[in-house]
Amino acid sequence: MVEVETPEVLIDRHILRTNIRQMAESTAASGIGLRPHAKTHKVLEMARMQLAAGAVGLTVATVGEAEVFVADGVTDVFIAYPLWATPQLARRLLDLTERATITVGVDSLEGADNLARQLGRDAHRIEAWVEVDSGHHRSGLRPGSVEEERMAGTTALRVTGVFTFPGHGYLPGQAIAAAAQEGEALSRSAALFRQAGHDIRHMSGGSTPSAEFSSPEHVTEVRPGVYALRDAQQLELERCGWEDIALSVAATVVSRREQPSREVIVNAGSKVLGSDRPAWTTGFGRVLGQAGARVTALSEHHGTIQWPDEVPLPVLGEQVRVIPNHVCLTMNLVDEVAVVEDDQVVDRWQVAARGRNR
Amino acid sequence: MVEVETPEVLIDRHILRTNIRQMAESTAASGIGLRPHAKTHKVLEMARMQLAAGAVGLTVATVGEAEVFVADGVTDVFIAYPLWATPQLARRLLDLTERATITVGVDSLEGADNLARQLGRDAHRIEAWVEVDSGHHRSGLRPGSVEEERMAGTTALRVTGVFTFPGHGYLPGQAIAAAAQEGEALSRSAALFRQAGHDIRHMSGGSTPSAEFSSPEHVTEVRPGVYALRDAQQLELERCGWEDIALSVAATVVSRREQPSREVIVNAGSKVLGSDRPAWTTGFGRVLGQAGARVTALSEHHGTIQWPDEVPLPVLGEQVRVIPNHVCLTMNLVDEVAVVEDDQVVDRWQVAARGRNR
Repeated sequence: MVEVETPEVLIDRHILRTNIRQMAESTAASGIGLRPHAKTHKVLEMARMQLAAGAVGLTVATVGEAEVFVADGVTDVFIAYPLWATPQLARRLLDLTERATITVGVDSLEGADNLARQLGRDAHRIEAWVEVDSGHHRSGLRPGSVEEERMAGTTALRVTGVFTFPGHGYLPGQAIAAAAQEGEALSRSAALFRQAGHDIRHMSGGSTPSAEFSSPEHVTEVRPGVYALRDAQQLELERCGWEDIALSVAATVVSRREQPSREVIVNAGSKVLGSDRPAWTTGFGRVLGQAGARVTALSEHHGTIQWPDEVPLPVLGEQVRVIPNHVCLTMNLVDEVAVVEDDQVVDRWQVAARGRNR
Repeated sequence: MVEVETPEVLIDRHILRTNIRQMAESTAASGIGLRPHAKTHKVLEMARMQLAAGAVGLTVATVGEAEVFVADGVTDVFIAYPLWATPQLARRLLDLTERATITVGVDSLEGADNLARQLGRDAHRIEAWVEVDSGHHRSGLRPGSVEEERMAGTTALRVTGVFTFPGHGYLPGQAIAAAAQEGEALSRSAALFRQAGHDIRHMSGGSTPSAEFSSPEHVTEVRPGVYALRDAQQLELERCGWEDIALSVAATVVSRREQPSREVIVNAGSKVLGSDRPAWTTGFGRVLGQAGARVTALSEHHGTIQWPDEVPLPVLGEQVRVIPNHVCLTMNLVDEVAVVEDDQVVDRWQVAARGRNR
């Protein structure tokens, strides 16, 4: 195992390429477009690989992320977020339309009206996709609700699509059901907006756990993000295998004990792994090559790993590779990553859109 | 309330100054030194304020953080972490000693031996403080353990202090007990190392919840970090009041609903707030000026806030100020912060040591 200064985020380029190719092939085989969510990686080189593999465009979460990728030459970007437009944000959106097709999310008539007002006479330069709630119950209009009908009947925006985030597919065993609800919500809302005279050409769904179950009848494109790198959540949801894990965090054992339980402390904590821990996960992360190990606690620079009884504890100074629960948070915590191939560091990539929260 | 582009981290300089002054005064009154943990803020301007208020030096978690503050002129830095020294790390430590007194943590004989070996003939230029476990059970030697005796008897490092992190004081009602255990562990270990011939001059303890209870009989200095800014954890531990909260995240309401529960979604999620949520907290954060509101869910760019029944829901586009659970994570997520005084943005500070995990 290559030794590096730790903690260090490692991306295995061979696995990354395979992950990118497989999702591109499986969506193409279903006749569904692939619009990867670039908030996951925030890396120009990875976006280029995804587009070269046939992606129809990129998804991002913020205008700041869009700016980074458009500056690199991406020509079709969907900001999948119900932005509340300020004058400054509207100017930045319009600037982006000089170089790319820019689409933004809306999930309320007030938000849509505000966006139209801030964009003024240039509102037609932006496409809007209406967010609908397919069961995740975060943002999004409820399909068939009064609010949705009001939006369809009155918005001044150029609505060309509907989208949903089937985030409830991030529960064990729920991916297939979430994909079915996604299709149902999207077709119902698309019909409603078409009936009101909108030219709905895009029905956008999908997340990493559910993307392969999205229905080409109801979905024109999917927006998975994590699929390119994978993480401990995907592993524990059984949506990927160990061999699909492209990102790990190299960490050094700095403390260890056999009693009262067999634990090592590594120098990777919440400031590099992120501290997401959904209730159904077994801990704060896993360890590459040690299926029985669990990250049981995190502080900022300490990760506590409970080590399996049958395996000798690593010695002090030994390096282990931690798989974070949520790779999007890890990528947002580092300025650059080490690119590994055949266990050698072959490149370094900047996390170009890191921290672009606005 | 000043309106800003959101999400934006705001620091109220007046409250910050008060927090810094009060901790400086209360530790001085007890005759205990104050060595603030700069991992909390990572900001040069804040470190300067803390040193001007009488701090004896700074605490940091990594060599990279030490480099940032030493470059700014700080002359006494304790890296409170059981570093596993590589040749590169040892070189960086020695470089730092050209400009400052550098002290590092050790918590194992192997780690101490490795550090001594890597530092070679220059080992005397670094001071070492031995970490002992006063009840938090993360890193640190157990006071009175065989390992501690071996370390005291054989290490080649220049051991000048003992330290502990009473992290179990981060539980409701535990701060006083944790401070007592801190004093007990430090005096026991200091005695052991003195008996073995080490010149123990520093007994370092303290964290924000427990610092005011540290005993001057057993503790020469404390290392609180969060005290300067405060956060939702401190509020819920009743270790500070609402008026002591110096940091909040300005966020805009982007979605809202009255049914099935009264919730707003704001554009501040885990990528600006951090997702730490100890079991005893009431959620992922609080809202300034709305004691009944709770951040009940976070995704990367969405914060779900359950709004109190008796208070009208904020309208779309309205700004609220979220108090994160753990301010150290928030500061590590942004490149700069807005400094506010009398509700005006009066300055911007760079988060100079952000992301310095190595």
